[in-house]
Amino acid sequence: MKKARTVEEVSMDPAVQQLLTKARQEGVETAFDRADAHTACGFGATGVCCNHCLEGPCRIAPNGKGPQRGICGASLDTIVARNFLMKLTEGAAPHAEHGREVALALLEAAEGKAPYEIRDPQKLLRVADGLGIETHGREVNEIARAVALKALEDFQQQTGVLNWLRYRGQKKSVAKWEELGLLPVNAHLEIAQSVTRTAMGCDADPLNLLLGGLRMGLVDGYSGLHMSTDLQDILFGTPTAVKAEYNMGVLDAKKINIAVHGHLPLLSEKIVTWAKQLRHEALAAGSEGINLVGVCCTGNELLMRQGVPVATSFSSQELVIVSGVLEAMVVDVQCIMPGIQQVAECYHTEIITTLPYVKIPGANHVDFHPDNADEAAQAIVRRAIANYGKRNPDKVAIPTVKTEAYAGFSVEQIVGALSALNEQNPLAPLLDAIVSGQIRGVAAIVGCTNPREQQNVGNVAVARELLKHNVLVVATGCSAHSLAKHDLMNEKGLEYCGEGLRAVLKAVGNAVGMESLPPTLHMGSCVDNSRPADLLTTIADTLDVHIGQLPVVGTCPETHSPKALSIGTYFLAHGVDVHVGVSPQVKGSEWVTQTLTGDRTDEELNLDKLFGGKLIYETDPFLAAQKMLDRIDLKRRALGLSVASDAPQSEDTVEHL
Amino acid sequence: MKKARTVEEVSMDPAVQQLLTKARQEGVETAFDRADAHTACGFGATGVCCNHCLEGPCRIAPNGKGPQRGICGASLDTIVARNFLMKLTEGAAPHAEHGREVALALLEAAEGKAPYEIRDPQKLLRVADGLGIETHGREVNEIARAVALKALEDFQQQTGVLNWLRYRGQKKSVAKWEELGLLPVNAHLEIAQSVTRTAMGCDADPLNLLLGGLRMGLVDGYSGLHMSTDLQDILFGTPTAVKAEYNMGVLDAKKINIAVHGHLPLLSEKIVTWAKQLRHEALAAGSEGINLVGVCCTGNELLMRQGVPVATSFSSQELVIVSGVLEAMVVDVQCIMPGIQQVAECYHTEIITTLPYVKIPGANHVDFHPDNADEAAQAIVRRAIANYGKRNPDKVAIPTVKTEAYAGFSVEQIVGALSALNEQNPLAPLLDAIVSGQIRGVAAIVGCTNPREQQNVGNVAVARELLKHNVLVVATGCSAHSLAKHDLMNEKGLEYCGEGLRAVLKAVGNAVGMESLPPTLHMGSCVDNSRPADLLTTIADTLDVHIGQLPVVGTCPETHSPKALSIGTYFLAHGVDVHVGVSPQVKGSEWVTQTLTGDRTDEELNLDKLFGGKLIYETDPFLAAQKMLDRIDLKRRALGLSVASDAPQSEDTVEHL
Repeated sequence: MKKARTVEEVSMDPAVQQLLTKARQEGVETAFDRADAHTACGFGATGVCCNHCLEGPCRIAPNGKGPQRGICGASLDTIVARNFLMKLTEGAAPHAEHGREVALALLEAAEGKAPYEIRDPQKLLRVADGLGIETHGREVNEIARAVALKALEDFQQQTGVLNWLRYRGQKKSVAKWEELGLLPVNAHLEIAQSVTRTAMGCDADPLNLLLGGLRMGLVDGYSGLHMSTDLQDILFGTPTAVKAEYNMGVLDAKKINIAVHGHLPLLSEKIVTWAKQLRHEALAAGSEGINLVGVCCTGNELLMRQGVPVATSFSSQELVIVSGVLEAMVVDVQCIMPGIQQVAECYHTEIITTLPYVKIPGANHVDFHPDNADEAAQAIVRRAIANYGKRNPDKVAIPTVKTEAYAGFSVEQIVGALSALNEQNPLAPLLDAIVSGQIRGVAAIVGCTNPREQQNVGNVAVARELLKHNVLVVATGCSAHSLAKHDLMNEKGLEYCGEGLRAVLKAVGNAVGMESLPPTLHMGSCVDNSRPADLLTTIADTLDVHIGQLPVVGTCPETHSPKALSIGTYFLAHGVDVHVGVSPQVKGSEWVTQTLTGDRTDEELNLDKLFGGKLIYETDPFLAAQKMLDRIDLKRRALGLSVASDAPQSEDTVEHL
Repeated sequence: MKKARTVEEVSMDPAVQQLLTKARQEGVETAFDRADAHTACGFGATGVCCNHCLEGPCRIAPNGKGPQRGICGASLDTIVARNFLMKLTEGAAPHAEHGREVALALLEAAEGKAPYEIRDPQKLLRVADGLGIETHGREVNEIARAVALKALEDFQQQTGVLNWLRYRGQKKSVAKWEELGLLPVNAHLEIAQSVTRTAMGCDADPLNLLLGGLRMGLVDGYSGLHMSTDLQDILFGTPTAVKAEYNMGVLDAKKINIAVHGHLPLLSEKIVTWAKQLRHEALAAGSEGINLVGVCCTGNELLMRQGVPVATSFSSQELVIVSGVLEAMVVDVQCIMPGIQQVAECYHTEIITTLPYVKIPGANHVDFHPDNADEAAQAIVRRAIANYGKRNPDKVAIPTVKTEAYAGFSVEQIVGALSALNEQNPLAPLLDAIVSGQIRGVAAIVGCTNPREQQNVGNVAVARELLKHNVLVVATGCSAHSLAKHDLMNEKGLEYCGEGLRAVLKAVGNAVGMESLPPTLHMGSCVDNSRPADLLTTIADTLDVHIGQLPVVGTCPETHSPKALSIGTYFLAHGVDVHVGVSPQVKGSEWVTQTLTGDRTDEELNLDKLFGGKLIYETDPFLAAQKMLDRIDLKRRALGLSVASDAPQSEDTVEHL
C-alpha cells in the first residue's frame, strides 16, 4: 500500500480537508483513501489491455517486449483505438439516456400523464421552430408533444440523421461530418453498433474505430447535451443569473438536510417543490425546516434554475455525509460512488436510489417515474424527515466554509446581458472585444474532480492562468464547483483577470446593474456543455467561419469520467482544441495518440488536419494553459486578428478546413 | 514466453496439425502461437479488474489482500457482475445487429430495392401469422414488408415488449420473465441501457446487474437468434437435410478457392450465385472453376442451405490461408481474427472486408449493402479470379483430410422426418423415446473453438460421452464443425451411441430412406440456436411443462466468444442447465459465481431457484458430461420419468418453478 496523502495533498478546499480529517479520525474510508491504496494497472491505464473475448485478457507491452499482437492478431493500435471507442461509448450512452428520459417526461407531461408543466413556452416555440415543427395556432401541449416525439425519433429512426444535429449543428461542421460519413442515424443504433464494432472479431481498423469514436462524440453532443438542455429548459425554465452559496457550509445543523446527487433534474425539481410543501412536517419533527443541497450535476441543475446551494463535487461526495447532519442523499444516475452507502452506514444518513437501473446494495430504493414524480418526491422528503430524530449530535461537524457564487449563465442570459450594451446587435460588444484583443479568446473549463488528483488544483490553476491572459472563461459540471468554491464566480476573483478581460466584465456587469460579471461564467451541468457550443455556433455564424477557426478551447483538467472524453470528442469534431489533464488511456499506441494530438509528422490523417483542432494532454496546469494560449493565438493569427505582444510565436500552423 | 505447444497439443484435427506445421516451417505466426506466448491476466480472467473510468483501472485481489473495493467504493461483487453484464452485452449486440441487418434486407427486398426474393413463402406466412400480421389476400411482398417492419419495431418501440419474444417465447417462460420485470422493450434501447448501467457511478447492485444480464440474454435470443433465423429462412429458404464435405481437404488446387467467413449470409448467398455465373471467367483464367468453402458461421449458413463445404472453424481460420490455394477470404462480421491479414500477406490471398463497421488494416474493402448485393458479389468473385495467377505453386499444400457430414436439420426438417413415423403426431415418437428412457435427454452442443484450448477435444469428448449415455445431441456453430470433422455427423459416429439412442436414430432414418440419422444433428449457425429453442418450446408445450423442466442441457465446451455467454444466458433464463468449458470470468466473486451456478447454500436467490436451471462450469469434458447427465436425471425424476440404472442418485434437487 502506498503512503496516504495528507488532507492538504488531497484537496485545496479547506472544507474537504476538515471533513476528510474527521472521516479519518472516525475510521471512515473514502475514495481519497482508496485512491491512495490502489495502484492503477499500467496496461489498462495506457489502453493496451484487451478483454473482449474469453481467450485473454491479452496485454501488449508498449516497450516492444513480449507478444506484439493479441491472440486474435489485433495490433497495439487496434486494441488502444478499440478501448478508446468503448470509453467514448460509455460516455455517450448515459448522456443519450439522459436525453431520452427527459424526452419521455416531456411527452408524458404534454399528454397530461405526468405532473410537469411547460415552464418556458418561449423556448418551446424556439426549439419547435428549429426542428421545423408547425407552431402557428397550436396549443402549448400539442407543440410540446410534437417536440418530444421528434426527440424520440432520434432513438428510433433507421435512416436519416439525428433531428437534433440538423437543428443545433453548425452548418459548416455538419457539411464536414457529412463528407466524412460521420452523421449519426439514431443514438441507440449508434451505441449498439459501437458495441458491435468493439466486439471480438469485428472492427480492427484503428482509423475506422476512431471515426466511430467521433460518431459517439456527435451522439453525446446532440442526443445527450443539446437535447437534454433544450428539453429541460422547456420543462423547468431557462436559467437566468442567480446568486447562491457554495461549499459544505451550506449544510444547516438546525434543519433537515437532503442532498440531491446525480444528473437528472426530473425528480430533484419535484423534491424542491415538496421540500417547501412539507415544511410544516419538518417543523413538527423539531427541526427549523428543510435544507436542500446539491452535489455534482443534479446540484448544478438546481443551482442554475432554483438557486439551490451546492455542497460539493464528485470526488468529495462521500464527505457531505461525514458532516453528520445529512438525513438523506437522494441519487439518480451517473457518478454515484457506491462508497456513499458504506459511509452512510457510519452515520444516520439514508441513501435513496430512484431509478430501476441504478441501485446500490444496502441503499433504499424509491422507484421514480415521471408519472409518479410527486408521490416519489413526497415519500423521499418524508423519509428524510423521519431520519432527523436519528441524528447523532456527537458526530455533527459542519465546516464553516462557504462562498457566494453567481450562476445561471445560459446563452439567453449572456445575450440578454450583452444586449444592455447593444440592443440591436447584442453579440457585437463581445465580438469587438475579441477582435480588439481585449478578450484573447474563450475557454470552457469542464468536467470533473478525480479522487486521484489534488482536488480543484487543476481546475483553479488553469482558470486563473487563462483569466490572467484575458481569456473569457465559462464553466460547467464539477469543474464549475471547483471555480465557485475558490471565489472565481464572485467579485473576489476579478483580481485574477487581465486588464482587458476585467474591463469587459465590468462594462457588461455595469450595464445590467452589477459591479461586474463574475470572472468565470457558470453555464450549468455537464449536459449544459450544449450552452457553450450554442454560444460558439452563434459567434461563428455571425463571423461566417467554422467553429474550429475561433480562438476558443475546451479544457478538462481533472477529468475522471469517460463522459468528459465523449464531450471533448464532440468539441474536437468541431475543430475546437481540447485539453485533458488526466490520461485518456491511449498512451500505449503512438499512432492513436498522435492521431488525436495532431502530432504526427508524416502526411497521414490526424484530428488537427481533419478539423483544425486537436487533443492536448498535459498534466501540468500552467503548461496546459500556455499550450491553450498558443493555440488561441494561432487561430487569432489565422483569422488576421492581433496577438498579444507577450505571446510567443508558435511554430505550429493551423490546418485549413 | 511459455513453451509452444506441439501441433498435436493444439488440435486433434490432422488437417489443422498439418497446416500448423507448414505455417511454423514457413515462419507464419498464428493465433495458436500467440496463445502460447500470452499469459492471460489473472485479474481480468477472474472478472476483478474494473476500468470504467479514468481513476483506475482498479483491481481487487480475491485473496483478500490489498484494497477490497474500487476507488469509487464498488465491491468485488459489483465489479465482477458489472463486467459479466458487459460481456453479455458484447455478446448480444452483434447478434441483434445481425437480426436488424437481415430485417433491413428483407424490407428492401419486399420494396423491390434489393435483389433478393422470398425463397420460402410458406415460412413467411407462418412467421407473419405468429406475429399477428394479416396474411389473407395479401401479396407475398406486402406480407414480407409487414414482417420486416414488425422486426424493425423491435429496435424502435419505446414501450411494450419485443414482438419476437411475444411470438417465439414459451408462454410459461414469458410469464416468469414478466413477473421478474425482465421483458425487453427494444433491443437497441436495452443494449444502450446496459452500457449506461455499467458506466461509472451507475448500477452498483450485483443482483440488479445480473438481472440486467438476463435481459441481454433475452435480447440475444429474440432480436438476435430467432429474428435472424426466421428472416433468413424466409429470404434464403428453410434448411432441409443435406450431405456435404468437411475439413481442409475441401480446398481444390485446380480451382479458384474463395473462403466466406463471418456470420451474415446476405452477401455470401450472392457469392454462391455469382461463383456459378462467373464460372466461364474462372475457366478463362486457366482454372477448373470456382470452389467456395465456408469458415465459421457464414460457413454454417451456406452449408445448411446450399451444401457448401466447410473448411474449418474459428480457431484455425488463419490456416485455410496457409494452404496456399486461397485466392480470397471474404469476411463480414464477428469472429474475424485480424491476424488473417498478416497470414494473407505471406501468401497471395486477398482479404476482403465488406461492412463499413468491420475493417482490417491492409485488407481490401468492398462495401456491401443489400441494394448493391449483386455488384459487390461480382466484384469480389472477379477479384478472386484475378488473384488466381498470383498463386505460388511452391507454397501449395492441401491436407487430404476431409469427411462427409449431414446437415440441414431445421426444426421443420426434424419434424418432417419424424412425421414419416407418425404423420398425425410427429413428435410422438421422440416423446415416447424420451419417456421410455431410450433417449435419456437432449443436449445442444454449441459455441466455439478457442486457440487456447486443444481444438475439438472438448466438443468431441462431451458429445461422445453424452451419446454413449443415450442423449440426443444437436449442434450449432463452430462446435458443429468439431463434431462433423470427427465423424459425428455421418454413419461412422453411430458407434459412439448408446443402444437406445442408436435404435431411435436408425428407426427415424429408415423411415426417411436413410440407413440412420447421423449421431448428432447439425442445426446450423450460432444464431440458429433459435432452432433447438423452438424444438424445446414445441416439446414443452406438448407436455404442458416449462422448458426448464425438460431433461435437456446446453453445453459450450470450447467457448471463446461473449456471444456464447449471452446465448447461454438466454437458455438459462428458460431454466435449461448450461455448461461452459472455458471460464466465464466471474470466478473472482463467490457471490456472482454461486448465483449463476446455483451452489449457494443460504436462502438467497440463485439461478437454479429462480428458473430451475444453472450454469455448470467444468473444464474436464468427462466430468462435464457426468454433471449434465446428473441434471438430466434430476429433471427426469422430477417429471416422474424412469432413470437409467447406471445413473447415480444425485443429492441435488430441482427447484419448483
